[in-house]
Amino acid sequence: MNDRPKTPILDRVNLPSDLKGLSDAELRQLADELRSETVSAVSVTGGHLGAGLGVVELTVALHAVFDTPRDKIIWDVGHQCYPHKILTGRRDRIRTLRMGGGLAGFTKRAESPYDPFGAGHSSTSISAALGFAVARDLGGDPGDAIAVIGDGSMSAGMAYEALNNAGHLGKRLIVILNDNEMSIAPPVGAMSSYLTRLYTGGPFQELKATARGAVGLLPEPLQEGARRAKEMLKGMAVGGTLFEELGFSYIGPVDGHDLDQLLPLLRTVKSRATGPVLIHAVTRKGKGYGPAENAADKGHATAKFDVVTGQQAKAKSNAPSYTSVFAKALIDEAGRDDRIVGITAAMPDGTGLKQFAERFPRRSFDVGIAEQHAVTFSAGLAAGGLKPFCAIYSTFLQRGYDQIVHDVAVQGLPVRFAIDRAGLVGQDGPTHAGAFDTAFLANLPGMVVMAAADEAELMHMVATAAAYDDGPISFRFPRGEGTGVDLPEHGQILPIGKGRIVTQGKGVAILSFGTRLSEVSKAAEALSSRGIKPTIADARFAKPLDRDLILKLARGHDALITIEEGAVGGFGSHVAQLLAEEGVFDHGLKYRSMVLPDRFVDHDAPVAMYDSSALNAAHIEAKVLSVLGIEALSDRRA
Amino acid sequence: MNDRPKTPILDRVNLPSDLKGLSDAELRQLADELRSETVSAVSVTGGHLGAGLGVVELTVALHAVFDTPRDKIIWDVGHQCYPHKILTGRRDRIRTLRMGGGLAGFTKRAESPYDPFGAGHSSTSISAALGFAVARDLGGDPGDAIAVIGDGSMSAGMAYEALNNAGHLGKRLIVILNDNEMSIAPPVGAMSSYLTRLYTGGPFQELKATARGAVGLLPEPLQEGARRAKEMLKGMAVGGTLFEELGFSYIGPVDGHDLDQLLPLLRTVKSRATGPVLIHAVTRKGKGYGPAENAADKGHATAKFDVVTGQQAKAKSNAPSYTSVFAKALIDEAGRDDRIVGITAAMPDGTGLKQFAERFPRRSFDVGIAEQHAVTFSAGLAAGGLKPFCAIYSTFLQRGYDQIVHDVAVQGLPVRFAIDRAGLVGQDGPTHAGAFDTAFLANLPGMVVMAAADEAELMHMVATAAAYDDGPISFRFPRGEGTGVDLPEHGQILPIGKGRIVTQGKGVAILSFGTRLSEVSKAAEALSSRGIKPTIADARFAKPLDRDLILKLARGHDALITIEEGAVGGFGSHVAQLLAEEGVFDHGLKYRSMVLPDRFVDHDAPVAMYDSSALNAAHIEAKVLSVLGIEALSDRRA
Repeated sequence: MNDRPKTPILDRVNLPSDLKGLSDAELRQLADELRSETVSAVSVTGGHLGAGLGVVELTVALHAVFDTPRDKIIWDVGHQCYPHKILTGRRDRIRTLRMGGGLAGFTKRAESPYDPFGAGHSSTSISAALGFAVARDLGGDPGDAIAVIGDGSMSAGMAYEALNNAGHLGKRLIVILNDNEMSIAPPVGAMSSYLTRLYTGGPFQELKATARGAVGLLPEPLQEGARRAKEMLKGMAVGGTLFEELGFSYIGPVDGHDLDQLLPLLRTVKSRATGPVLIHAVTRKGKGYGPAENAADKGHATAKFDVVTGQQAKAKSNAPSYTSVFAKALIDEAGRDDRIVGITAAMPDGTGLKQFAERFPRRSFDVGIAEQHAVTFSAGLAAGGLKPFCAIYSTFLQRGYDQIVHDVAVQGLPVRFAIDRAGLVGQDGPTHAGAFDTAFLANLPGMVVMAAADEAELMHMVATAAAYDDGPISFRFPRGEGTGVDLPEHGQILPIGKGRIVTQGKGVAILSFGTRLSEVSKAAEALSSRGIKPTIADARFAKPLDRDLILKLARGHDALITIEEGAVGGFGSHVAQLLAEEGVFDHGLKYRSMVLPDRFVDHDAPVAMYDSSALNAAHIEAKVLSVLGIEALSDRRA
Repeated sequence: MNDRPKTPILDRVNLPSDLKGLSDAELRQLADELRSETVSAVSVTGGHLGAGLGVVELTVALHAVFDTPRDKIIWDVGHQCYPHKILTGRRDRIRTLRMGGGLAGFTKRAESPYDPFGAGHSSTSISAALGFAVARDLGGDPGDAIAVIGDGSMSAGMAYEALNNAGHLGKRLIVILNDNEMSIAPPVGAMSSYLTRLYTGGPFQELKATARGAVGLLPEPLQEGARRAKEMLKGMAVGGTLFEELGFSYIGPVDGHDLDQLLPLLRTVKSRATGPVLIHAVTRKGKGYGPAENAADKGHATAKFDVVTGQQAKAKSNAPSYTSVFAKALIDEAGRDDRIVGITAAMPDGTGLKQFAERFPRRSFDVGIAEQHAVTFSAGLAAGGLKPFCAIYSTFLQRGYDQIVHDVAVQGLPVRFAIDRAGLVGQDGPTHAGAFDTAFLANLPGMVVMAAADEAELMHMVATAAAYDDGPISFRFPRGEGTGVDLPEHGQILPIGKGRIVTQGKGVAILSFGTRLSEVSKAAEALSSRGIKPTIADARFAKPLDRDLILKLARGHDALITIEEGAVGGFGSHVAQLLAEEGVFDHGLKYRSMVLPDRFVDHDAPVAMYDSSALNAAHIEAKVLSVLGIEALSDRRA
């Protein structure tokens, strides 16, 4: 059990307005306390730690200088918002972060007026902030719009599109580039202080000029030690020039952990900005908490941990994760086929491509947060004769949808889509749900769409995708660990468009697409006590459908139930279309399609999310009983 | 009837290999003949003229210097490819452009090995070319990859994502920036010639340095006249610096109409490039054909025309276009509600937003080719209290899909999506088909999804969207002219989720979503001669569904047929899901769902495309007869 930190000043802060009465010295102490409180909270809940620690001072400075919620702070991605939540009336619930019924792990409009625009995916903040700024100038909500965006998020095309448009429109708008890729060497800090004093002394036009030629203006004693700084400034100045060419006033770099720089700078910007301003703040991810600073990922995401040692609670693991099975299977296939290459969009860890990259560095490509490019780049690789596995989470694949349609499907190019995080994903909640991929892929002509029922099936699907060269093919699998089935040495190549009967029963058939299969089996077990023995089948393919299997199931049973971890419009809809066209409904079939509910499902443990979505074993059992006209026992319902 | 131009050299060219024997002087003449032939062909077919005329010399130079199809030229968007098609064995079919069974209006892999990567949408070429380059270096197809991309396409985020990745990878890759926004003043041309000679004289490292300081190196006589050029160069140099920072060698600007510059430059690049190279070519859209050069849109897209006068054949118009009805209705609503704003992504003409912008310049936003930003910017505007109408073609809305899910739907923000070009679009073919929007929108929780049955309905839907403030709402309508129905003075606000009975009949009910309604009526007329009188209903909403209406139709008829201009997974799938859940299928219903076929439909006249898709009146009639068990007369089938 971790002790709560002592936080005398923070204890006096309930809302940002309470910051207005604090001196700059008190704000500095507040930042320290806020950091301790953030570490303490995440030690209990787990979650995104490093990003929040990197913006503690920015959070304090923004709320101290601006008038939130009238002024709107839009945190890009939103996973750095824990300190912000603590300062904006949510401290009492901060130890419920990412838990069912608790605070969301991202900003969320429904949660607080201090979250003017929610997030989860990256690179949306500048577009949103520009919307607020334009709305304000046309008589909508008043106040400033401030986007805080990380340097990683800047690799996405939509951030560039937004900068381009913002610079063109010329509205007052503040973008803070939170640059945490670079550690702050002492000379840079000193120079930044110097520059900041310059910024706050003169009008903006002078500032820009000064910033550009800054090294020459440094006091003599600093010049010798500033060689490295100069190298860095060169990079910065180029960055600055780019932003200026896009129409922004560029200020930076500033030390994003130094309130003595941040406070006067933000006050100046607040009082003087007339157009779009970009503040380039250099910060350190994980700042101020040793175990995070020293971790390779800077404490990006963590389980519960001991505050003193940083030791994370080990998750009990019964089976390998789907991600690791995918990675191993892909490495296995790639060892036997040198045309296989892997593509990820800034998620080498999450997708397992990192392991692939260690084994095949020349055949692995991390394109950054750039899903549009990732897909069309994969299409080009396929057109050039390789076998690209484009590994993107279901939710992020939405970013490359047009490219899937236009560059891959229309041309029938054999890109393999490895779709991790299919279905509901747990703590990351609705912004990360993989709910729509089956629907948006299965209606594309020529696309082969698979879902793995377990981790052995996933291995077969990797092998199938590797062997299939006639067009695009996809396979989806969920977050988390597998079912613990025995794994074959190599995956087997599946016949395209063929499902399998798992259990032959009678009366009712359940056709599963994806990992609900294990819930179906549980339901069948419970039903057996009533003498009901459903036929269970694993569809494997949503496209092409196994026409023979489906018609056999429909014609050989009174009832047919499909189930999938996806929204309506996907697997079940394709089955219904087939049944309708074949006239199976003409003379009656008790057909039901179990899909995700028509609402965004709030974050919770995955099993709880599926419970609220009525897609667990008890719901399947109840569905079977209801189609058979049997009253379910109330205790069997979830 | 236009005379065919005299083209003695072009007549000797069937494939690019025939260019290898031509002198530079003959290549210059070839370019002139190619321009004449392009004008002559488009005068017969209509189509994209200006862009092709702007790249005639580039086309000749690329095919003369590189070894296509081993080397791969990837034309961004592809609408500038007519001269390329003439030179690559398709001259004999060039007067079939965009006609049914004829050549596609874009590059198309299935059409020719000289089209290594098809297009239609913009900004994909660098990603694709990088794929080819990487594949080549990993043992895939050999040869150079050359992307030719316009300055307009550079505003899209995915072009930036691709540059970013290409620079990082450092592979040999050639990007030609076809900059046609700027006219070429004489001094620039002279300076470009000078620069080009410099380029071709020294190694690349020198070239870059020279290009940067180019004005200082100019011969004396040129310096006076080069003032404007210097201004331009300043812009260029910044652009160059940007590309260089991204890892490209930057060469430019070069006069893209001067083969004396292009040929030596491309030869040098071909022989010496080791990494990514960007050649900045300045061209003029519509170049060399007066009526195009003088047109406001530089002859971007044209109907058939008289070559001498440039006079275009006037289309016979019986009814206003859906686009113009939308524009008028939006202007009408905006005149009474100053919170309404309009957003377009570089399609002010095509979406009708241009008319809106003329009336409400401050409330109109053209964000460039940047659909991702357009959607999230709209979300920000909505969050800021305005009523954004985000007007994007169905096919291009695919580019903003994640933003629709993540920024609009998850947050329930009242963005209005005006979706033009829904369904099959005619000459632009499969890359521009609006086939998937109903499916990818209707499964989003909280989204209201409408389709207009005619232009009066479209007015009602604009009014409905303007009044609806509870969440996101969309309405789709097709390309082309309306049905000619009487238009009301103002649109009426429709009740959300309510359809309407058009004709009460019996036995069979046809429920239409969108403009197939007129085909349904025609089918009903034909059926009446057999004594069959179907009930006809207009669903108006795919979401929320009109539950009462649908159940009434299902329970009051033996057969229910849905029809829509979209792929499976959309309206019909939602109806089937409702019917299944309600147990309507349990005891039998002859249910059919008429949707777009499971293939990409080749370009043709829209009516022919719907014919091949079996969605015209004759097919509806046949479907009715088939569900009723009546043999259709063969002459009634299309």
